[in-house]
Amino acid sequence: MNLYPQQLRLQCRNGEFNGHTSGYCNGYAQANLIVLPKALASDFEDLCFRNPVPCPLLTKVINKKDVADKRIIKTSDFDLTTDLPKYTVYRDGELVETKTDITEEWDDEDHVGFLIGCSFSFENELATNGYKPKHQKEDSNVLMYLTTKYLNAAGVFVKCPYVVSMRPFKTEDIDQVRNISRPFKKTHGEPIDWGYDAVARLGIKDLQNPEFGAPIEIADDEIPVFWACGVTPQAAVQAMVKMQKV
Amino acid sequence: MNLYPQQLRLQCRNGEFNGHTSGYCNGYAQANLIVLPKALASDFEDLCFRNPVPCPLLTKVINKKDVADKRIIKTSDFDLTTDLPKYTVYRDGELVETKTDITEEWDDEDHVGFLIGCSFSFENELATNGYKPKHQKEDSNVLMYLTTKYLNAAGVFVKCPYVVSMRPFKTEDIDQVRNISRPFKKTHGEPIDWGYDAVARLGIKDLQNPEFGAPIEIADDEIPVFWACGVTPQAAVQAMVKMQKV
Repeated sequence: MNLYPQQLRLQCRNGEFNGHTSGYCNGYAQANLIVLPKALASDFEDLCFRNPVPCPLLTKVINKKDVADKRIIKTSDFDLTTDLPKYTVYRDGELVETKTDITEEWDDEDHVGFLIGCSFSFENELATNGYKPKHQKEDSNVLMYLTTKYLNAAGVFVKCPYVVSMRPFKTEDIDQVRNISRPFKKTHGEPIDWGYDAVARLGIKDLQNPEFGAPIEIADDEIPVFWACGVTPQAAVQAMVKMQKV
Repeated sequence: MNLYPQQLRLQCRNGEFNGHTSGYCNGYAQANLIVLPKALASDFEDLCFRNPVPCPLLTKVINKKDVADKRIIKTSDFDLTTDLPKYTVYRDGELVETKTDITEEWDDEDHVGFLIGCSFSFENELATNGYKPKHQKEDSNVLMYLTTKYLNAAGVFVKCPYVVSMRPFKTEDIDQVRNISRPFKKTHGEPIDWGYDAVARLGIKDLQNPEFGAPIEIADDEIPVFWACGVTPQAAVQAMVKMQKV
């Protein structure tokens, strides 16, 4: 079912949709949302500017209905606090609640929203071209790892880990997989590295034990292929909160 | 002596200046030049887009007198092949010659120039604010290291090392040093990491044996501070040439 973005957003607002958006709205960019206090906004923007592959900032949302870049959301009938399927609420870096709107939590005076490009965008294109990622076939969540590759520091965001997602592909398909994902410049683009030697380069401890997502089998004729992951900005904010507590 | 950029460029063109530009033209951005065959231009631009901190692309130069972004060089009286103090000519990734103009080498049909932001820009600002980098005081070249932090792959540019420069500063000065260099967004900006624990994070083998530049003493009350280095794009091109030869 290929909905227009505004159709799906209205379904979210009306409580008719609160699921996973993978596979929806083909041909449109998908986004992750992060909401932060205004005091952190400038440093966070700088973090994105300095690390555009794992933190591809699509646009800021200055008050809940005001998207800075109108090319990203082309309607004035938009509300950041209701138009996404589900929200996770963190306090002091800890998950406290999952809800279908954040009208109560949002504070126009103190909050800024950031829409970050999401890999669902290029996954659809891979699938369409006959390179459906294995986790999609198995209907599981993509594997994600913390790496020892750190982000370029920016303001309060220091020592933040670069998170990668992994999708196994056949060695002979790597060129095509790279070519298909490359044009998705604002949603992580092409893989950052691949092959078993990339595991050491990225400092991944155990390929069979991802930090997020379910393990997946890598066949003998396949190799692991690593993309920058949209979980990175969230991990950065959590690392920052943790560091401020110390 | 604080020359205007065009004054210094004309001195280069007329053979009156062929030295090091550190400390010249305060308040203006300094640039490194890379010239590549057109076939590599798109992948190289993508490499810069995906790694803006070590590879901050200021502008392309499409033919030797045509700067793509006129804000970067604000005169039509510009010639890429004569207006820089010195050029190093590489063939198949190996340095073959150093000369003061490349009018013979340049091919308008096949070459594209890339101007890359250079750290001389923020070094001046540090010095002006009382944080003169130690290598400037000792009149030596800044220390540079190859790291095990790799660039985000882009087209033919895979497994390219992230090169960092190092300047020692006192621990209590780090915040100020970060604040002063941060606004230089197109010339590497703030440090990417610092402290002795950063040496391991960056995979630097031996702090006393930099890959480029002369070693420098780090006093007991100082720590090493690492910035992204403008040698990175050149190292990337050399890594790519080496890989194509294999």
